[in-house]
Amino acid sequence: MHVGVLTGGGDCPGLNAVIRAVTKSLINDCGARVTGIERGFLGLIERRVVALDRRAVSGILHQGGTILGAHNKADPFAWFGAGGADVSGAVMDYVRELGLDALVAIGGDGTMSIAHRFQQLGLPVVGVPKTIDNDLMHTERTFGFDSAVAVVAEALARLETTARSHGRVMIVETMGRYAGWIALEGGLAGGADVILLPEIPYDLEAVATLCRKREAAQGFTLICVAEGARPVGGAMTVAAHMADSPDPIRLGGVGNVLREQLQPHLQGEVRSTLLGHVQRGGTPTPYDRVLATRFGCHAAAMVARGEFGRMVVLRGDGCDSVPLAEVAGRTRTVPLGHPLLKAARSLGISLGETRA
Amino acid sequence: MHVGVLTGGGDCPGLNAVIRAVTKSLINDCGARVTGIERGFLGLIERRVVALDRRAVSGILHQGGTILGAHNKADPFAWFGAGGADVSGAVMDYVRELGLDALVAIGGDGTMSIAHRFQQLGLPVVGVPKTIDNDLMHTERTFGFDSAVAVVAEALARLETTARSHGRVMIVETMGRYAGWIALEGGLAGGADVILLPEIPYDLEAVATLCRKREAAQGFTLICVAEGARPVGGAMTVAAHMADSPDPIRLGGVGNVLREQLQPHLQGEVRSTLLGHVQRGGTPTPYDRVLATRFGCHAAAMVARGEFGRMVVLRGDGCDSVPLAEVAGRTRTVPLGHPLLKAARSLGISLGETRA
Amino acid sequence: MHVGVLTGGGDCPGLNAVIRAVTKSLINDCGARVTGIERGFLGLIERRVVALDRRAVSGILHQGGTILGAHNKADPFAWFGAGGADVSGAVMDYVRELGLDALVAIGGDGTMSIAHRFQQLGLPVVGVPKTIDNDLMHTERTFGFDSAVAVVAEALARLETTARSHGRVMIVETMGRYAGWIALEGGLAGGADVILLPEIPYDLEAVATLCRKREAAQGFTLICVAEGARPVGGAMTVAAHMADSPDPIRLGGVGNVLREQLQPHLQGEVRSTLLGHVQRGGTPTPYDRVLATRFGCHAAAMVARGEFGRMVVLRGDGCDSVPLAEVAGRTRTVPLGHPLLKAARSLGISLGETRA
Amino acid sequence: MHVGVLTGGGDCPGLNAVIRAVTKSLINDCGARVTGIERGFLGLIERRVVALDRRAVSGILHQGGTILGAHNKADPFAWFGAGGADVSGAVMDYVRELGLDALVAIGGDGTMSIAHRFQQLGLPVVGVPKTIDNDLMHTERTFGFDSAVAVVAEALARLETTARSHGRVMIVETMGRYAGWIALEGGLAGGADVILLPEIPYDLEAVATLCRKREAAQGFTLICVAEGARPVGGAMTVAAHMADSPDPIRLGGVGNVLREQLQPHLQGEVRSTLLGHVQRGGTPTPYDRVLATRFGCHAAAMVARGEFGRMVVLRGDGCDSVPLAEVAGRTRTVPLGHPLLKAARSLGISLGETRA
Repeated sequence: MHVGVLTGGGDCPGLNAVIRAVTKSLINDCGARVTGIERGFLGLIERRVVALDRRAVSGILHQGGTILGAHNKADPFAWFGAGGADVSGAVMDYVRELGLDALVAIGGDGTMSIAHRFQQLGLPVVGVPKTIDNDLMHTERTFGFDSAVAVVAEALARLETTARSHGRVMIVETMGRYAGWIALEGGLAGGADVILLPEIPYDLEAVATLCRKREAAQGFTLICVAEGARPVGGAMTVAAHMADSPDPIRLGGVGNVLREQLQPHLQGEVRSTLLGHVQRGGTPTPYDRVLATRFGCHAAAMVARGEFGRMVVLRGDGCDSVPLAEVAGRTRTVPLGHPLLKAARSLGISLGETRA
Repeated sequence: MHVGVLTGGGDCPGLNAVIRAVTKSLINDCGARVTGIERGFLGLIERRVVALDRRAVSGILHQGGTILGAHNKADPFAWFGAGGADVSGAVMDYVRELGLDALVAIGGDGTMSIAHRFQQLGLPVVGVPKTIDNDLMHTERTFGFDSAVAVVAEALARLETTARSHGRVMIVETMGRYAGWIALEGGLAGGADVILLPEIPYDLEAVATLCRKREAAQGFTLICVAEGARPVGGAMTVAAHMADSPDPIRLGGVGNVLREQLQPHLQGEVRSTLLGHVQRGGTPTPYDRVLATRFGCHAAAMVARGEFGRMVVLRGDGCDSVPLAEVAGRTRTVPLGHPLLKAARSLGISLGETRA
Repeated sequence: MHVGVLTGGGDCPGLNAVIRAVTKSLINDCGARVTGIERGFLGLIERRVVALDRRAVSGILHQGGTILGAHNKADPFAWFGAGGADVSGAVMDYVRELGLDALVAIGGDGTMSIAHRFQQLGLPVVGVPKTIDNDLMHTERTFGFDSAVAVVAEALARLETTARSHGRVMIVETMGRYAGWIALEGGLAGGADVILLPEIPYDLEAVATLCRKREAAQGFTLICVAEGARPVGGAMTVAAHMADSPDPIRLGGVGNVLREQLQPHLQGEVRSTLLGHVQRGGTPTPYDRVLATRFGCHAAAMVARGEFGRMVVLRGDGCDSVPLAEVAGRTRTVPLGHPLLKAARSLGISLGETRA
Repeated sequence: MHVGVLTGGGDCPGLNAVIRAVTKSLINDCGARVTGIERGFLGLIERRVVALDRRAVSGILHQGGTILGAHNKADPFAWFGAGGADVSGAVMDYVRELGLDALVAIGGDGTMSIAHRFQQLGLPVVGVPKTIDNDLMHTERTFGFDSAVAVVAEALARLETTARSHGRVMIVETMGRYAGWIALEGGLAGGADVILLPEIPYDLEAVATLCRKREAAQGFTLICVAEGARPVGGAMTVAAHMADSPDPIRLGGVGNVLREQLQPHLQGEVRSTLLGHVQRGGTPTPYDRVLATRFGCHAAAMVARGEFGRMVVLRGDGCDSVPLAEVAGRTRTVPLGHPLLKAARSLGISLGETRA
């Protein structure tokens, strides 16, 4: 049996752990031949592959990134390199030339959609979910998320010492454009006093009031805000701030907007930090190494069983799978009744909600 | 409402996060008065308590240990301080004097057994499980475990660089007298080539053969062994090594025994490291901070609902509870069919099993 | 003997280690009474002090921030609280009321200037230098610097994995408005390919050329830039970018300017990260804990010897002191002939210099 | 020019950083050809070499261990592989065959001695010191030491939380058979209450008294002891404990001896941890990456200048060199008047000295 492996989309701690687990498992359990496809689907378009054996995946468990490389925008069904043309036919020809019996596609939403279409074209595919945002349907947790949460918690811990001793409001802006999982768990783990999510529009007055109260009492406030968080009704407010800059990173995002909104209400200084890509790279946490390894081993087992057209998921304490058709294009946001939100409120953490 | 909180048994990263969550939740949600009992049940015997308010639990989320202190052997039903006498009556008198309406007992197996007996004496109790070994029935994961696994994985990563460049066999002995969870997940996260658990007696010859093979091929081997691991049939073998030393720590435990067993079979040096108590202390990982916080908030909610005589557990992605009667004295070892064992074998990791 | 201790200026890992060392040494060696002054010189203006004994400084060695608090702008000689009035007389009255025989002032350039003036008013002062920028005259290294460098190196390591696997140019903007020490050592420790300092105006074309070369060869580039770095001749260039935003943090600083300057020259994406205040807070590295402890013990010894009007410095492997008069208002920038610059060039790292 | 590079002796964080710096500097500054010799001098005996170019040393800055491998006992002047014969002639033949113009030898005392003898045989040699013990003459600091100190400090910090909350005496045994630098700086950085060094025989009664005092007052004690520490007059005492075990690691070393000596004097439990090889491996700290890089660049510059027969050293804030003849066989122990010892005493830390 000859199996191809590729990694698509943005970076995520644990990709190499999956590649290692898939490769070793296929070799040990099926005596399969494994071929790595370089830079995601781009490798199938540009015909760039590399052989994967035990030695090739030795010692990469702890490494961030992906030894295969990845590419964000390479869609064979709309290849901008060919002016948006559909080059999937040429890709299938190459797949046949390589003699691939199956493909393990490790990636996010976009990768799964493309993988699903190749499955329909007759290429047996197993998907492995990849999202640090932990916002994929049908799976409780994805590798990379724990690592991102750890980076956020560490940053909050560092900023807290300064906030405490210098009487400041410290804002940390995390990833999470549509789902607030990273800000929520990162904020809880880092001891944030305010956590703002895309799922709950924040009441600026409520946040400002809490910061004033804390300035008088504890003397400082830690705010953890997801990049997708928005004020009540007022996407406009942000839009206004965005006006002079179409690029949120250039502006510094909602964290800096919030800083400008809060400063006038407070005596102490308000400072904002945008964590950005440090949340996406680097060595995965031990938890993510184990989870990524499990996903990889399960994907290999699915290939061995001929369980194709499906994606690995985590259910309870075990791995399972769901049809690729069911995952594409759907995001798992934080349900308003989620126990972590309840826990946050019990701890006295403000979610930016208007006080009744 | 007046609620007491105590921490019993050995140290475990996350205890302070639970104390903080229980206290803040009870104050914010029930307007309860919270009293900390010092050094576990010893505080109820020696009448040593401290008031807990928001300020008292502020900034302890990241701290290892427990601000209340703990005690390993203080059992009011057999108090060695009183020559094994039952002082539970005096304890109940003190509880009535304090006017405690309920007790939140955070601890392991022993603490839950004692808590259960006080529940039967009429003191409403909610239990919060504490075990870095992750070997408690009915709950998939307990706080402290992820932190212990991280310490093991970090140690293996440090030793691997030396093993690789100096052609050595490096052995890491982890905690786990009866259950091998720490060695299993720590070994997987740390890239161990051999993982030995109490649940699977190891075949010395099989381990030695693999080390010889790897010495010829990769040049080094990483072994992760739980303190409770034993050779096939041969508790004797260890006993023999133990003979001149009744104290396993003094001998250095099974790791050093294994070192002496393997060295004669190999050319390169075999070195063993006993991690010991560094696995039990220190700052909890962000994952454990979140889990401990959730356990604490759920325990407070149980008190508010009058859901007594039960212990918090993690089921799937949510918290639940089970009767204290069902947990006492039962250990959750690694099932021989567990997916992590299957994954380990697929990766080519030896579990010390005899090759058929 | 009665000694006051205060911490002034911005946050810096190691402040608590100094407070602990000063307090314990004065108590153990001189049987002195030690009083902590809250929030820097503000505490002498607002008459807020706290007694310091062994218990008060126990367990703070690892803590970031300062248990005494600090204040950036409290200058008794120009107290904005009093409309820029000189309240130094009232401060001296308070000092006499407290019965302080000496003051240990821990802080940066501004704090040393104020301390120097109080020395001239008759208050015996010993200064302890505090700057994460490591830009103080007469001392080779200051505590906090190693911790800041570690944060930069860790961020670069995380970003490198993404840069490698996704073929990107990753920019990290560090602290260092006038001196480039943090960017220089952080960049060297983090494996940066380009390091831009305030001391060496960068030639955009040279940087772009190197990025293009590396894009073709290695596929990625890591850039470490100090916030004070500026293009050759072209403060204007930046000014232009600054035009729509008087606030450099809002704009994201030179890192984002550089990103916009480089992107047009490259195919791969260019991303910028602004580390900001995470460099200033958090647990000090072991190196900084030892250095801060040594500074504190040496300051106490100077008090005991009556060696006043001077500031602790590190010379070779030992502590020494220099007159406060000699430090004020002078910054130690990176000398153009410094061995670290030579080392960087030998490694093939670009300093943004124009190729001859 | 053709230059050979080898790493000898035990593992030490930073070796790869030196290899990378030497290689890149020689290529960039001298257009030299660089050849790596595998497993120290063993590679010259067994004729195993590998070409080193920019790609070969790319991305190894953070890696622990050495990509060239190392060997502890390979001495060409007394090659046990040849029954203790002198094979240096054959080695020189091989050196001439390779056409090596110079050799950069990275290693400890033993490696420097051998390097010195080859220099005398006509092979131009530059030495780079390697010792985590920081016990080399003529150089204030060596790479690897800061990393070892960080591991010790981290272990002490983890154990302190347990010691505090469980009222224990926690002992950490560090490396340092003849010099106590690691125990001294690690103990200071980790907040140890007792630090025992090979240079100062400890008075058991003095240590026990302090532990008893602290048990009554603070409730716990942290002890950091170097493996080479010995009780006053009583190497015998240890010898007695050693009697039943010639192998110190098997016994667990002085830490466990001390545990058995102290336990009878105390109520709380005494626990001992032997850190062992985790101090020698793993990613170097940023400080060590910079120092190792500087050593490597300076060694390359010495080769370029023809400055042979000498070893790189750190003096003040700059690199310098000393004749190989002057370093061999001499150990830099902690001088009894060293400021760090004075600092420790001022902090109230016991060095095991008898109270007058």
